Amino acid sequence: MGDYPVHPDVTPGFLRRQLPESAPFHPEPDAFAAAMKDVRDLILPGMTHWQSPRHFAHFPASGSTVGALGEALAAGINSVPFTWAASPAATELETVVVDWLGKALHLPERLLFCGGGGGTLLGTSCEAILCALVAARDRKLAEIGSTRTGDLVVYCSDQTHFAFRKAAHVAGIPRDNCRALPTCRDDMFALSPTQLSAAMQADVDAGLVPLFLCATVGTTQTTAVDPIRDLCAVAALQGVWVHVDAAYAGSALVCPEFRHVVDGAEAVDSFSMNAHKWLLANTDCCALWVTRPALLVAALGTEQEYILKDAAAEGHDVVDYKDWSVTLTRRFRALKLWLVLRCYGIEGLRAHIRAHVRMAALFESMVRLDPRFEVVTTRQFALVCFRLRAPKKLGLSGEKKANEINRRLLEEVNAAGPYMSSANAGGIYMLRCAIGSTLTEERHVRDAWKVVQERATSLLRKMEMTYNVAASTY
Amino acid sequence: MGDYPVHPDVTPGFLRRQLPESAPFHPEPDAFAAAMKDVRDLILPGMTHWQSPRHFAHFPASGSTVGALGEALAAGINSVPFTWAASPAATELETVVVDWLGKALHLPERLLFCGGGGGTLLGTSCEAILCALVAARDRKLAEIGSTRTGDLVVYCSDQTHFAFRKAAHVAGIPRDNCRALPTCRDDMFALSPTQLSAAMQADVDAGLVPLFLCATVGTTQTTAVDPIRDLCAVAALQGVWVHVDAAYAGSALVCPEFRHVVDGAEAVDSFSMNAHKWLLANTDCCALWVTRPALLVAALGTEQEYILKDAAAEGHDVVDYKDWSVTLTRRFRALKLWLVLRCYGIEGLRAHIRAHVRMAALFESMVRLDPRFEVVTTRQFALVCFRLRAPKKLGLSGEKKANEINRRLLEEVNAAGPYMSSANAGGIYMLRCAIGSTLTEERHVRDAWKVVQERATSLLRKMEMTYNVAASTY
Repeated sequence: MGDYPVHPDVTPGFLRRQLPESAPFHPEPDAFAAAMKDVRDLILPGMTHWQSPRHFAHFPASGSTVGALGEALAAGINSVPFTWAASPAATELETVVVDWLGKALHLPERLLFCGGGGGTLLGTSCEAILCALVAARDRKLAEIGSTRTGDLVVYCSDQTHFAFRKAAHVAGIPRDNCRALPTCRDDMFALSPTQLSAAMQADVDAGLVPLFLCATVGTTQTTAVDPIRDLCAVAALQGVWVHVDAAYAGSALVCPEFRHVVDGAEAVDSFSMNAHKWLLANTDCCALWVTRPALLVAALGTEQEYILKDAAAEGHDVVDYKDWSVTLTRRFRALKLWLVLRCYGIEGLRAHIRAHVRMAALFESMVRLDPRFEVVTTRQFALVCFRLRAPKKLGLSGEKKANEINRRLLEEVNAAGPYMSSANAGGIYMLRCAIGSTLTEERHVRDAWKVVQERATSLLRKMEMTYNVAASTY
Repeated sequence: MGDYPVHPDVTPGFLRRQLPESAPFHPEPDAFAAAMKDVRDLILPGMTHWQSPRHFAHFPASGSTVGALGEALAAGINSVPFTWAASPAATELETVVVDWLGKALHLPERLLFCGGGGGTLLGTSCEAILCALVAARDRKLAEIGSTRTGDLVVYCSDQTHFAFRKAAHVAGIPRDNCRALPTCRDDMFALSPTQLSAAMQADVDAGLVPLFLCATVGTTQTTAVDPIRDLCAVAALQGVWVHVDAAYAGSALVCPEFRHVVDGAEAVDSFSMNAHKWLLANTDCCALWVTRPALLVAALGTEQEYILKDAAAEGHDVVDYKDWSVTLTRRFRALKLWLVLRCYGIEGLRAHIRAHVRMAALFESMVRLDPRFEVVTTRQFALVCFRLRAPKKLGLSGEKKANEINRRLLEEVNAAGPYMSSANAGGIYMLRCAIGSTLTEERHVRDAWKVVQERATSLLRKMEMTYNVAASTY
């Protein structure tokens, strides 16, 4: 994977044009080998390589060999564990492995099966949030004796991932009833409990019903950490369901030094994280835990005759995972996660996280050493948000100009080799360097920084020339 | 897979009890080999083996070696093609392969990219229906200038898969606004356009707004086929979105002799089928096509700064699949489906479907030859719904008694080796023998029928003895 450009130099339609318009009627001789040749010649060169050691964009999709082997094995077994009876071992392994993972991440016991809650493995955070939201919605409507979803209000910050607003929209919450509360750089873009409290009170005063808060631990743009304990205290006053979306940063909780970011999580109703982002479980693997599984089952449960109840399960409180999620068909995701936890051990996972954090700290320190740049928000995990300061001597002050320079810088950096992405928080456009690919080593990080510096030098020189020309013209 | 019992003889907790309560801190030496030993010794013997040639329950999860290799390869590449830029080749292969599949299944061109529509690969039918439903909901509310989801009504039959009612519930349609119209055995449990028309009119008269019809081609219980052309004509009068759920039977459309079951599909708005059920694409792989992708994007689309827009994509009408589904993160499912289509060819897929249909016809003919049994609904694809008639000489007439006998018969059959399931339609409890495992051969079908006959003989003898004892007592 390391040999391909991380991002391909292709234009839309490049692949479609090279493939036939229909599937073959007769397979060609040795079709699999021919297909593998196309994989090598057409597909891999046209991919964005998330496994490349130079992939610093988005958040990582940190894969592992055992994770991939787990997927391969699950694909071969190809069972559909939608009820306990439909695959007892797959169901039970899932119940075991979500407890293993929850303990490894230092989650409160109330979220685990061993503490009266429970977890499941879904595809994505958006699914997880949607499940929690529908459970919360149904409970609240029952409580207030209403069916009017239009009265319900949900809360998040302006940094919360769009997945939440999408989930709320899907669940029938009007777009106008989604409060994305503003954050600011001085608060490291974290959601303010005071603002939340005021917003809820205003909604209550307007005759609306506060329903759900999606707090984030490690936002997508800048890895901001919302203050869970204080937010839960505010939410409790209005009987609001609190979900924590730790899609990215949840993996870091395997290290005790990050435990503090979920202080107060004992009071949350649900919690999700993507083990496929930074914990070596290949895509997809989103873990969702809830303190009251019965509420999920009440909202999403099904009973149909043809769904076999195993005689052996009668009288037992078995988990039928079809009742815990939107989907009925499901994959045997537990297998790969179990393999990852078992083959790496807690120790190995901590080493994996810490290596990335260390490399991110190195990148951050290099940025700080170059006075042309600034680190926009102090790094918390393995993402560095930085930007080129607008050079004052060019008279190019003002955020707008700085944003434009950094936009050009990102384009030039990405054209040159490493692949980074951007954020725009509080009006500030910044570059994001997210370290998390399994193959990334210190040299890749140093090289990436060197490219950034070189591109910045060349960009600033070009600008200076333009300025001089402009200055001599006028 | 064929060597394991299709359904394990285990009781709840069997696996949980054998595994440690937490993940290991240090991985044990050669942890992968140790884990594989546990897979062999603990997990595989505790699975329900969907790939077993004796798995006749539910619908099949027909897997293939190329499908599994495709999953393995995708897990190794581990990219997340949520936008075109996030993986150009993966996105384009998906657009190509949904057109290939749609053409192979004889779908109307309006549903394909080449005809102005378009498709995507999701996990499950429930997701597919939910996406279509949210698009329909948003369009309808905009049309009538309302935000009241509580006024919207959705339609299906009492045979429609629970996935639809779940999707409607998730999307905020009140449970009371879901009309599951009754079907009857005389109509082969198909949805009646006359009933649909009457129900819609009643709702309009009551001030409600007809929104969405979920028609099914191949219902889960008995593979009933709803009459699409006539239903679309009724739905059109009220501006109702028509979705066809062909989760199982969609695969059969690869054979021209089944094309007639979707007669009139030119008028539908969306169509979904599960290539993981009967078309050799290992779980999961649900294809959804829509005639107007813009409506999906309007309902589910997102715009955020950190989502990179590739410069190369500017000015092009690229597909960003994150805007076509509930989830943002997604797997590279197109790879395995492309491999399956390419390595089997249309010819190979037809042979695969026809072999199962032939075996099901054989099973059906054997049932018909035994006067103790009846085929409840004429077989249409590769599912046979049958039952033991209640023996009249025992005076055990009445559906209730017959249902009880057949329930016992299913239990005994499943304890003896093959794994079947049941349906309950129109008050009739029946056994379901769904043929579709890739490994199933004629001998497995003959063996399964022999087991059914033997268990029936023994069951009837036991009942007769009970009857004689009872008769001599009184």
